[in-house]
Amino acid sequence: MRDWLVHIRRNEHASLQTQIREALVSAILDGQLARDEPIPSTRKMAKSLGVSRNTVVLAYQGLLDDGYLVAKERSGYYVSEKALEGALQPNMAPKPVSAGSSINWAARFTMEPAAQANVSKPMDWQTYPYPFIYGQVDHTLFPLAEWRDCARQALGKKWLGTWTNDTWANDDPLLVEQIRRRILPRRGIMASDDEILVTLGAQNALYLLTTLLVSAKTRVGMEEPGYPDVRNIFSLSTPHVSLLPVDGKGLVPSEAFDACDLVFTTPSHQFPTTVTMPLERRMELLKRAASHDVLIIEDDYEFETNYVNEPCPALKSLDDDGRVIYVGSLSKTLFPGLRLGFLVAPKNVVEQARALRRLMVRHAPNNNQRTAALFLSLGHHDTLIRRLHRAYRTRWEIMGEALKTHLPDSSQVPGFGGTSFWVKGPDGLDSGELAKAAATKGVLIEPGRVNFGAAGGPRNFYRLAFSSIAEAKIEPGIRILSDLVQR
Amino acid sequence: MRDWLVHIRRNEHASLQTQIREALVSAILDGQLARDEPIPSTRKMAKSLGVSRNTVVLAYQGLLDDGYLVAKERSGYYVSEKALEGALQPNMAPKPVSAGSSINWAARFTMEPAAQANVSKPMDWQTYPYPFIYGQVDHTLFPLAEWRDCARQALGKKWLGTWTNDTWANDDPLLVEQIRRRILPRRGIMASDDEILVTLGAQNALYLLTTLLVSAKTRVGMEEPGYPDVRNIFSLSTPHVSLLPVDGKGLVPSEAFDACDLVFTTPSHQFPTTVTMPLERRMELLKRAASHDVLIIEDDYEFETNYVNEPCPALKSLDDDGRVIYVGSLSKTLFPGLRLGFLVAPKNVVEQARALRRLMVRHAPNNNQRTAALFLSLGHHDTLIRRLHRAYRTRWEIMGEALKTHLPDSSQVPGFGGTSFWVKGPDGLDSGELAKAAATKGVLIEPGRVNFGAAGGPRNFYRLAFSSIAEAKIEPGIRILSDLVQR
Repeated sequence: MRDWLVHIRRNEHASLQTQIREALVSAILDGQLARDEPIPSTRKMAKSLGVSRNTVVLAYQGLLDDGYLVAKERSGYYVSEKALEGALQPNMAPKPVSAGSSINWAARFTMEPAAQANVSKPMDWQTYPYPFIYGQVDHTLFPLAEWRDCARQALGKKWLGTWTNDTWANDDPLLVEQIRRRILPRRGIMASDDEILVTLGAQNALYLLTTLLVSAKTRVGMEEPGYPDVRNIFSLSTPHVSLLPVDGKGLVPSEAFDACDLVFTTPSHQFPTTVTMPLERRMELLKRAASHDVLIIEDDYEFETNYVNEPCPALKSLDDDGRVIYVGSLSKTLFPGLRLGFLVAPKNVVEQARALRRLMVRHAPNNNQRTAALFLSLGHHDTLIRRLHRAYRTRWEIMGEALKTHLPDSSQVPGFGGTSFWVKGPDGLDSGELAKAAATKGVLIEPGRVNFGAAGGPRNFYRLAFSSIAEAKIEPGIRILSDLVQR
Repeated sequence: MRDWLVHIRRNEHASLQTQIREALVSAILDGQLARDEPIPSTRKMAKSLGVSRNTVVLAYQGLLDDGYLVAKERSGYYVSEKALEGALQPNMAPKPVSAGSSINWAARFTMEPAAQANVSKPMDWQTYPYPFIYGQVDHTLFPLAEWRDCARQALGKKWLGTWTNDTWANDDPLLVEQIRRRILPRRGIMASDDEILVTLGAQNALYLLTTLLVSAKTRVGMEEPGYPDVRNIFSLSTPHVSLLPVDGKGLVPSEAFDACDLVFTTPSHQFPTTVTMPLERRMELLKRAASHDVLIIEDDYEFETNYVNEPCPALKSLDDDGRVIYVGSLSKTLFPGLRLGFLVAPKNVVEQARALRRLMVRHAPNNNQRTAALFLSLGHHDTLIRRLHRAYRTRWEIMGEALKTHLPDSSQVPGFGGTSFWVKGPDGLDSGELAKAAATKGVLIEPGRVNFGAAGGPRNFYRLAFSSIAEAKIEPGIRILSDLVQR
């Protein structure tokens, strides 16, 4: 028996049976097993791996069923000839992708998005004891069993057509119905099905709208500080990006605002300062937008996490003029890796955005749309929001206290909820340096520089998020941070 | 008891328990149940719906657990106060999306993709007895149990981080590994991980590449006839789209080809004619591309369905120059609704495409990436390809015979495999009219006009696909079609 064929790791994610199957399939398809080579008996394999024979029998049975192995009487198991049809041909020498590469790519690129500054977070953030990082979910709060149950139903035989078909430009009608009936009315918005488009996260909605509405001549406005990914999208399409100031009431109405064709804003919780725009400011913004024919894209992220006041309805709900396009996300309450969001706009805008989405991605994967629709319709989403609300409020209070105690000299822009604090460090602090030093102590924070579009924007702001850190870790983490700031 | 609250449909996809839960959650969240209104007892509800009491008990238990209902001793079930927090406020009158709509949207749009001609297929194609339509999968061939098993594993607690996190610009390393080790070598391509990008279907890869490489001045070449969605993508970016002729060997090398900066081609099975480009033609094309510095996008769709010859390696595998960008899809063998594809390109191109994808969609949903990775690594994908191969080959032969018998006057461009025939009807035939007439007889075909970019392109071509029609239906369907063509 060739021992190297199958290795078992007890602490692996996959079951032992799965690991055995995977190793044998790999060996067959990678051409490591010759046609006439016998496979160890189930007894031998079980003994050599130290697993139960039953586990091996089940793995072998699956491989027999699928034609990878054949059983010969009195002789045991062999690799099937059929399986080798798909295997690598030894006489085929694959060619490296960039072989000669005489191309002058830089001259070919119409844009270089990789050169843009952007938020970067360590992929292994979960291994840090104090991850104050933004936009991830706390796994301990997520109703995994319910989600899996919905996924199981969505993958059911009866719905097979729904999730396997290419549905071209169409969304899952059940998900659209849930957005229309369950999510939008609470934001004060009444939409018909053809005024809603499901997108690959809010990010995709913003990209679609920019492609549709921004040319090289368009003057767009952007909150400063603001969401860097949107500034980056705008910058790919137009050089005319105005950085509009933000104060304690959110986006400030100004002549610079009036001069824009299109403005991006986050009234529920300004990104990244978390301030909520009060009603009077909203009315003023809409009035000025109407007089100067400014279109508004409202990113209503995290509206559901206002712990202090009654949630303010969306800016869109005050819009008499059809000039606010609403963008929402399921990433913050479900999970970001799912990539589900939506936009709400007049029918003719949705029609164009739908045709563009067809060319860009077709549609969000149907299985996920259906799973999310079931999750919403069975009330699990509402249950989850209530649970997040309780957990986040507690963490928000703990963090507020910890900041008051340990970093009294740093001022926090008043935050009404959300999932983070926006902290202004002492003048002269470089939060990029602070973040590096903190990481070595196990504390992850987000330097604020990237949220400013202006050259020479301030470096002393940083963001502390609490959506994926346990209550008990907040105070100790802030204490460590405070020691570093003091030095 | 208010009878209208819960309706049960026996032939629904959802289980009875799910239906009861959904109806009660709806009534609570839509504000149809008052705070103090008692809910019928499980016994009454079971009797009134004619279902087992156990079903109702389980549904109620879930609602108690999630805080939608409260049980009061000796008094029964009531809607919980907490649950109503999220309910619609009766005093909040939602505002319609397009309220006043004084906006001149037409003047705002930078493009109008909805005006482009495109393939349209009836969404209810499965209800037609003879669906000769392209690009859908045959549910009877799909290993649903294996897919569900992989999905279940991918949703497992141990992998929670993998699928819930926003992974920003990164792909699932397990899926990238499977593409690199399992799929690309068979196409003669050797890539490193940073030369592979997972996309939302091949469509998304084509959109990303166009955005990166095509400006208003770029001269792009497109097969004629060819894939309309690519022509449409190109047309959004540049007015300089050359329609390059196709013959029995695929794309024809020509001076028009030499004059392009970038050319899109489908060498494995030309879309829509299904011809395979022979080796000499490939070499000639690459030689001319090198002399005139033409970049090539190779869409290698359906490479695995060549039943007649040994599959020809990808054009990319002959490319010494790094000028061919390879686009692949998992839609044809898994299912199109999943939206998974990939592109292979030099590292610096992938780096830019990845940064652009981050702005456009972030990444393909992580749960689907992981499910597909498991499906590939356990050999289910290879098993499926072998199964499809057998089934499609038989259908291809049956359809070839049926066409020879019933439509001898229509010439078919020789097709080596694929999942469709490209049929040239008699001169003067309008295949759009034929498709309409055929649909009334239960036969769905695809008129070919949309595949031609030229004004005044021919109308007598049509496509007959066999990927989602049962063997036994092929001959009778062609017979009906033949009767219609004769008339």
